[in-house]
Amino acid sequence: MRSEAEKKQLLQRLKRVEGQVRGIQKMIDEDRYCVDILVQVSAINAALKKVGYKLLEDHTRGCVTNAIQLGDGEESIDELMKVIQQFSKS
Amino acid sequence: MRSEAEKKQLLQRLKRVEGQVRGIQKMIDEDRYCVDILVQVSAINAALKKVGYKLLEDHTRGCVTNAIQLGDGEESIDELMKVIQQFSKS
Amino acid sequence: MRSEAEKKQLLQRLKRVEGQVRGIQKMIDEDRYCVDILVQVSAINAALKKVGYKLLEDHTRGCVTNAIQLGDGEESIDELMKVIQQFSKS
Amino acid sequence: MRSEAEKKQLLQRLKRVEGQVRGIQKMIDEDRYCVDILVQVSAINAALKKVGYKLLEDHTRGCVTNAIQLGDGEESIDELMKVIQQFSKS
Repeated sequence: MRSEAEKKQLLQRLKRVEGQVRGIQKMIDEDRYCVDILVQVSAINAALKKVGYKLLEDHTRGCVTNAIQLGDGEESIDELMKVIQQFSKS
Repeated sequence: MRSEAEKKQLLQRLKRVEGQVRGIQKMIDEDRYCVDILVQVSAINAALKKVGYKLLEDHTRGCVTNAIQLGDGEESIDELMKVIQQFSKS
Repeated sequence: MRSEAEKKQLLQRLKRVEGQVRGIQKMIDEDRYCVDILVQVSAINAALKKVGYKLLEDHTRGCVTNAIQLGDGEESIDELMKVIQQFSKS
Repeated sequence: MRSEAEKKQLLQRLKRVEGQVRGIQKMIDEDRYCVDILVQVSAINAALKKVGYKLLEDHTRGCVTNAIQLGDGEESIDELMKVIQQFSKS
């Protein structure tokens, strides 16, 4: 389970990402230069990657660690590896 | 310059991405399972990558092609290579 | 520790990657079409990523799991997260 | 067409990559620590990415620019976009 402080931090980051996505819509609407828009899209991706790595870390320290301590890590690690690959390719 | 149809399609995709980002905030707020949230984050990244590739293609067919036809491609290709690297790493 | 079967499989994959890297040198030497070479470079990267994910999985099932079971997972997970990020960006 | 200087530089980089791939085989053979091997795999991927970006740039400045100047850029840009996506995901 995420602490309230962690939740608050993740929500703040995602609020900012939401604003950035709206910002790009505005840029497209105003026919702004493609390269400037692409730089913004890259910035959002990078911000979402950070959110993802934070979730991945919390998950490994929390759920995966608990499963391993209960002698039941196999399935949990299968799932972890699968989501790491999916996330890394995105 | 993007056509109205292209702008409309990009804006629709970005509206959907905006909704997905709000969806993740809700998932965090409701303490949903980390792996499910990570799958959603990966889906948003993939959707933004598609938007980025579309912008990259439009830019190459438009601005870069024009610059090359005017015998002035050097600077335009420098900028293109830089943004491709930045975008690919994001 | 990797089993002999796992080591053999990893070594076979890396032998193949080594051959592919030599193949690209030959392609450049013979002035082959850039796009064909780039497709080969992408294939090698994909093959190396597979090797990397296999190592990551073995490491998580082995060293990280052991550390967690010994109540000493913190440092091991720090290191894991760091290498995942480095590897994903490469 | 690549100049002799460009070919030489690319071949030198690929020789080094070939040596690094052999180095990883040795590390696996000697049961070295997985994380150290993963760091090396990441380094090779990064080196190959650099080779790829160089090829991509040469290709855009050469073949793609020529095709556009001959008023025949469409197909060339299609191919470019496809290989950029394939390469970026690898």
